[in-house]
Amino acid sequence: MIILSGPSGVGKTTLRRRVQKRIASLAFSISWTTRPPRPGEKPDQDYYFVAPSRFEKQISRGGFLEWARVHNDYYGTPLPPVRTWLRQGRDVLLDIDVQGARQVKQKMPEAVSVFILPPSRQELKRRLSRRRTESPQALRLRLRNAEQEMADWILFDYAVINAEIQASLKALLAIIQAQHYRVSGP
Amino acid sequence: MIILSGPSGVGKTTLRRRVQKRIASLAFSISWTTRPPRPGEKPDQDYYFVAPSRFEKQISRGGFLEWARVHNDYYGTPLPPVRTWLRQGRDVLLDIDVQGARQVKQKMPEAVSVFILPPSRQELKRRLSRRRTESPQALRLRLRNAEQEMADWILFDYAVINAEIQASLKALLAIIQAQHYRVSGP
Repeated sequence: MIILSGPSGVGKTTLRRRVQKRIASLAFSISWTTRPPRPGEKPDQDYYFVAPSRFEKQISRGGFLEWARVHNDYYGTPLPPVRTWLRQGRDVLLDIDVQGARQVKQKMPEAVSVFILPPSRQELKRRLSRRRTESPQALRLRLRNAEQEMADWILFDYAVINAEIQASLKALLAIIQAQHYRVSGP
Repeated sequence: MIILSGPSGVGKTTLRRRVQKRIASLAFSISWTTRPPRPGEKPDQDYYFVAPSRFEKQISRGGFLEWARVHNDYYGTPLPPVRTWLRQGRDVLLDIDVQGARQVKQKMPEAVSVFILPPSRQELKRRLSRRRTESPQALRLRLRNAEQEMADWILFDYAVINAEIQASLKALLAIIQAQHYRVSGP
């Protein structure tokens, strides 16, 4: 189990898509969210976009490995597919926020957590502003949260500075491959 | 600091030489030994071959990171070069026996230990016998020690089954690269 996390805008999604292309056997957990899709996001591939009422029903059933409310929206990792993949002995990749990563690490200490960092605060701000799909208010909130999340890299097993996508991809592939040779948890 | 260990005959030396070719910046600690060189071994590249009296003088000075007496010969890792490399921020590779690996791990818990395993006991016996540079008695002793050392893989951070050199090399390179992104010790 590989947990990919980091502040929004850091380039996690691009990186994750590249890793999936390189490791075909890797199972990727598609999160549920109640927020609307951003341009370029594919439903049922990047996220399952669901209504808040359906999300809350799934919570009450204990159907999430982790879930959180971020920027007034729900995000969560549905438990059943993850369980199936782990039973099959497959590597599972989660692309989740820092709160979610903490929850998964508590439940599964053998999971490997990787924090993706921006090369600088300035660069993160630039990447987030470039997105231009949100109101200035939503952007400000996202920036403030990103600043707070950034401090959490120290709690992770690995940290990769995403300055250049090709180098970050290589780092991530090495981290995933190395886990196959671990004698015990990270 | 990367510790490479495993029973003799497992192919550590070949693997280590390949890793050195692939990572030019990697510093390789050349061990001291009091045993005579085997055919194909290069003095001052594979080992420093020294007299027992000189080895014992170095012990009394505290000049080894680890040392051991194996098969009636001394083997040791001289401390001064390792100290210099680590101060320079370089990766350091040690190719040492299981006893030595344990000593280094106690002194430097942040060192990453990798155990190289043979694909089977039969294959290890075959590889050791093929060496044909030792007396039958020395071979028997080496085989018995190898059997005992094999049980220690569980104490290492990583274990790689050396069935095919190219795959083992890839594994080792991934393990070394992944360490650069560790937030804290292995």
